[in-house]
Amino acid sequence: MTVRVAVAGASGYAGGELLRLLLAHPGVEIGALTGNSNAGQPLGALQPHLLPLAGRVLEPTTAEVLAGHDVVFLALPHGQSAAVAAQLGDEVLVVDMGADFRLADPAAWERFYGSPHAGTWPYGLPELPGARAALEGSRRVAVPGCYPTAVTLALLPAYAHGLAEPEAVVVAASGTSGAGKAPKTHLLGSEVMGSMSPYGVGGGHRHTPEMAQNLGAAAGEPVTVSFTPTLAPMARGILATCSAKARPGTTAQDLRAAYEKAYADEPFVHLLPEGRWPATASVHGSNAVHVQVAYDPAADRVIAVSAIDNLTKGTAGGAVQSMNIALGLPEETGLSTIGIAP
Amino acid sequence: MTVRVAVAGASGYAGGELLRLLLAHPGVEIGALTGNSNAGQPLGALQPHLLPLAGRVLEPTTAEVLAGHDVVFLALPHGQSAAVAAQLGDEVLVVDMGADFRLADPAAWERFYGSPHAGTWPYGLPELPGARAALEGSRRVAVPGCYPTAVTLALLPAYAHGLAEPEAVVVAASGTSGAGKAPKTHLLGSEVMGSMSPYGVGGGHRHTPEMAQNLGAAAGEPVTVSFTPTLAPMARGILATCSAKARPGTTAQDLRAAYEKAYADEPFVHLLPEGRWPATASVHGSNAVHVQVAYDPAADRVIAVSAIDNLTKGTAGGAVQSMNIALGLPEETGLSTIGIAP
Amino acid sequence: MTVRVAVAGASGYAGGELLRLLLAHPGVEIGALTGNSNAGQPLGALQPHLLPLAGRVLEPTTAEVLAGHDVVFLALPHGQSAAVAAQLGDEVLVVDMGADFRLADPAAWERFYGSPHAGTWPYGLPELPGARAALEGSRRVAVPGCYPTAVTLALLPAYAHGLAEPEAVVVAASGTSGAGKAPKTHLLGSEVMGSMSPYGVGGGHRHTPEMAQNLGAAAGEPVTVSFTPTLAPMARGILATCSAKARPGTTAQDLRAAYEKAYADEPFVHLLPEGRWPATASVHGSNAVHVQVAYDPAADRVIAVSAIDNLTKGTAGGAVQSMNIALGLPEETGLSTIGIAP
Amino acid sequence: MTVRVAVAGASGYAGGELLRLLLAHPGVEIGALTGNSNAGQPLGALQPHLLPLAGRVLEPTTAEVLAGHDVVFLALPHGQSAAVAAQLGDEVLVVDMGADFRLADPAAWERFYGSPHAGTWPYGLPELPGARAALEGSRRVAVPGCYPTAVTLALLPAYAHGLAEPEAVVVAASGTSGAGKAPKTHLLGSEVMGSMSPYGVGGGHRHTPEMAQNLGAAAGEPVTVSFTPTLAPMARGILATCSAKARPGTTAQDLRAAYEKAYADEPFVHLLPEGRWPATASVHGSNAVHVQVAYDPAADRVIAVSAIDNLTKGTAGGAVQSMNIALGLPEETGLSTIGIAP
Repeated sequence: MTVRVAVAGASGYAGGELLRLLLAHPGVEIGALTGNSNAGQPLGALQPHLLPLAGRVLEPTTAEVLAGHDVVFLALPHGQSAAVAAQLGDEVLVVDMGADFRLADPAAWERFYGSPHAGTWPYGLPELPGARAALEGSRRVAVPGCYPTAVTLALLPAYAHGLAEPEAVVVAASGTSGAGKAPKTHLLGSEVMGSMSPYGVGGGHRHTPEMAQNLGAAAGEPVTVSFTPTLAPMARGILATCSAKARPGTTAQDLRAAYEKAYADEPFVHLLPEGRWPATASVHGSNAVHVQVAYDPAADRVIAVSAIDNLTKGTAGGAVQSMNIALGLPEETGLSTIGIAP
Repeated sequence: MTVRVAVAGASGYAGGELLRLLLAHPGVEIGALTGNSNAGQPLGALQPHLLPLAGRVLEPTTAEVLAGHDVVFLALPHGQSAAVAAQLGDEVLVVDMGADFRLADPAAWERFYGSPHAGTWPYGLPELPGARAALEGSRRVAVPGCYPTAVTLALLPAYAHGLAEPEAVVVAASGTSGAGKAPKTHLLGSEVMGSMSPYGVGGGHRHTPEMAQNLGAAAGEPVTVSFTPTLAPMARGILATCSAKARPGTTAQDLRAAYEKAYADEPFVHLLPEGRWPATASVHGSNAVHVQVAYDPAADRVIAVSAIDNLTKGTAGGAVQSMNIALGLPEETGLSTIGIAP
Repeated sequence: MTVRVAVAGASGYAGGELLRLLLAHPGVEIGALTGNSNAGQPLGALQPHLLPLAGRVLEPTTAEVLAGHDVVFLALPHGQSAAVAAQLGDEVLVVDMGADFRLADPAAWERFYGSPHAGTWPYGLPELPGARAALEGSRRVAVPGCYPTAVTLALLPAYAHGLAEPEAVVVAASGTSGAGKAPKTHLLGSEVMGSMSPYGVGGGHRHTPEMAQNLGAAAGEPVTVSFTPTLAPMARGILATCSAKARPGTTAQDLRAAYEKAYADEPFVHLLPEGRWPATASVHGSNAVHVQVAYDPAADRVIAVSAIDNLTKGTAGGAVQSMNIALGLPEETGLSTIGIAP
Repeated sequence: MTVRVAVAGASGYAGGELLRLLLAHPGVEIGALTGNSNAGQPLGALQPHLLPLAGRVLEPTTAEVLAGHDVVFLALPHGQSAAVAAQLGDEVLVVDMGADFRLADPAAWERFYGSPHAGTWPYGLPELPGARAALEGSRRVAVPGCYPTAVTLALLPAYAHGLAEPEAVVVAASGTSGAGKAPKTHLLGSEVMGSMSPYGVGGGHRHTPEMAQNLGAAAGEPVTVSFTPTLAPMARGILATCSAKARPGTTAQDLRAAYEKAYADEPFVHLLPEGRWPATASVHGSNAVHVQVAYDPAADRVIAVSAIDNLTKGTAGGAVQSMNIALGLPEETGLSTIGIAP
């Protein structure tokens, strides 16, 4: 069986990474590629690393162009997915790589995005309890944000096993590709090379309620997240350093056991051997998540660190993984846990 | 008046940065330069950026070589400073850029360094309450660690004004020069470019007790610090993202007022205007500290961020600033708040 | 059919990249992995990006360990391959990723390497005229150097079609992984980030005679190469900027036609559309070579530029491509022309 | 004596670097700062590394604003300087950091810039024979381009001493700040980190005729330059790798002697000791030029390499050096040969 897929937003970083993965996916035929401002251009001019598609020409993002595919991936600015999805039939699998359908709480959506809530779709983080069941057979998928993917998988076992207090503190460093391909002065190479800087400090980043939603579901009680993202001088990768006060009685052994149990059967989440810590270079281009956890006795805190590729597991890889589940394909099809290093 | 200074450890990164600053210092004459494994080599082969000293030859680090100077800077591996200092007269100003004399608590020293405590010297962070008085006229100075400089100055006003609970959570990103010039595989360019990774996770980094000492002094009660350092793909700079639960009743206005008051007269600490955040690129090569603070209402936490150049304010600039105070020179002599950007 | 392969030198950068490719090769079973100083260590500690092999333990590089494989890849320091190969049977395919068997001229070998010439094996650059025939069925392969791969493929059509004078001038920039994983001060991240520097200037680089050998074969007359390599602040990639005086009468159209003809059927060499130029980012992790050529009328020179990934097409990908030919497999098996960008 | 200076174009990279240098210049008082699109903004928001000027507000670039200064620096897009300069009195020293007045040959100007030639001003490369005399007392200065500065100083002694044939081949790598601060997709950090790429290949770069002009003047005969610039993953620095066929009889000793003689008394050009090669990191933020030369016997070519900071000696430092000469100040005032490394 081969499914025919279209990609809306093929000229950006998320779209390019998705195409890289789809080219290696044995069950997929790549159909329409769209992009609004770049419609009419060959993909070779926009994504020169994707040689097999160099001659393909971008079309405008319209319902007509996207019609006739089994799967449509949306890599669009937030606020645009609902209208496009409404024009596609219910039998089409729509995988939204944007934010529109991630949050269950309309109030949280409106507070962070300032627009009416579009709804909630099955959430494409299969490692969350219950997520696989919701994805199976679904024809709508909301792919998680890159930071929430990294942070949720870093802290999930601690909260699921009741080992951490419900106030998480997260500082995460992201490569610049997470900020997209639209040219902005603060994203110029001259500005970012040699520099680390924070943004959205004080609770303002839009991924914050998504993290709280995931961790709260795992904990069975509300979890607050103090989240500070930072921009790092690298193109790809997220390193999430997460901590929370330990629940009374929590030991390093408890943590190790909880993480080992949680991820023993997960194909993409890899708990590192004790004493080794994640590095984003090790997951470059890979769908793997490297995780490690420690207990700091002096501060009485659980410290969990994860590394992902923001474009792969954090966006396009997560999207393909969810597509596989929705279509009933083996979950790992077309995905790899092997990074490109150094 | 011109003082004659010697630098022990002139071939490393701290020594090189110190020489860069001393070359611009109007009250200093550069005397002996030493380095053990590199003794006999011209400085031009080891520090090719320091053209005016290219022909100077490194001598071995001995008491004879260091004798006859008014000031001796020690940029040596920890554990070596005490023996060298003992051979220099009490009238010589000895500025130790290593860790040996920073901690007041012998038990903390022994726990983190595993060797007998050598003693405690006046601490070269003039911005700490009481520090300037202790430095004036002193002939021994312990220069702070780079991370403690960044973290202390980020959180000092919050603790000094009773606005934060005594459990700080710190995640800091450092450029690779902080790890020194000795060749190690994990510090190769191939390994660090494109990668973020943590180290010393779980409370193990030796700078942790120094941060707790400084913040505890400011708070007037013990402060625990959960500290996670990360290695960033850049040569210089520290970005310290620090937070703590807010004391009940703390507002954003309280924080702003406390930081403005604390740093209004500090020549090197710059509280950024509201809405702007520190970036390490802005302090590259500068002795300035850029600081910003916010209150996160959802998490009820104080978030303070600072950026320094780890080699300048974090090491060699802090050393020169302390030397100036000890010698009775204007504190800013030879130092600049101007960075090299982009 | 599945062949069983061993990799001698699995802990270095070339060995790691080779394993990454072999893991994706459908006709290969990975057997022994060896490394001398790292023998006994799990690969997960040395190559953390290769998750599927994390538990494999390195063995010492001995004839006993390497025995019983169909293919043995040697990623060893130069001078060591001959002795190892001599202990392996003639029926074993030995693919040497080192320099020992690349040069046909013993005098050139001795001048550049200072040791006796070990011999000459079929040369693993299939795009050279006659190379595929020599590789088919061979049980010994000398993989080209990374710079010669990039330079030869940039200039080959110009020389093969008699469009350039036999004095080539080459300046190439390489990522730091080309210098290997052994820790050296000048390869530290602190040294290479933000810096470009040349090395081996004036004709001293050992890859120079190999380029001359390849281009001379294409031209049918001796070609001199003025080669200046430079170290660039990136982990991977070679950008080779090559030029030569145009033969009288050469036009831009001649050049375009020659390059189109030369590479029309090559699976891995991609002549870019006119007006677009190679970038190393576009071939990151790919076995593709991006090539472009221009004629500069004012200087009357042919300018050809190529970009490769030094570890993939420049080393491990070239090795796999040659293995495929030697074994009679489709040449592209397990190899990709898709890069990882950004 | 203190001169009052204005800077037109203070928000860009050249303007920012100029201000950094002027802040350290003892004979200068910084007056009006202008910028068109950023007029009204505080400099602290645009150049956060220049703390002492953080509160200064940008004004529009008009004759009224620029009036009343002794010196006016123009960091404007090419084509705009003539109109501004015409409105300033003849007694005002106008230092143009743009291209408008660099070329003596109107035909070359029109061919490369496509607009009428504005004229020729004394050329601000004091190291060129005759340049200092032309600059002394002049009230108009054309600051050289960054690439021509690096390339001219690399090859000048070879041509001035008749040691090289008049066909130069240059490949230069530049940091991204040379491309300016206006946001463009190909200059995003995501695009440039990890990538080397050429541009303007085949003789199209506008700095080419300027190099030919300088080298031709030194040689006393026309010199052609085959120039290929490349964009390197660093913010600052130019490494120029230059070569030319040796004139018959040229020896390595001839070259060394010529370079030693040429630069013995130059305050900013440093011929490295034999065996050491320039690195851009060594001149980061410095006005120094590091130069080395070699003779390649096999290719019979002279190979000369220089490293500069494109924003310092390549733009703003060269401008200040020329201002000093024009005003009769010591040439080195406010400039340094010390880099910031690592």
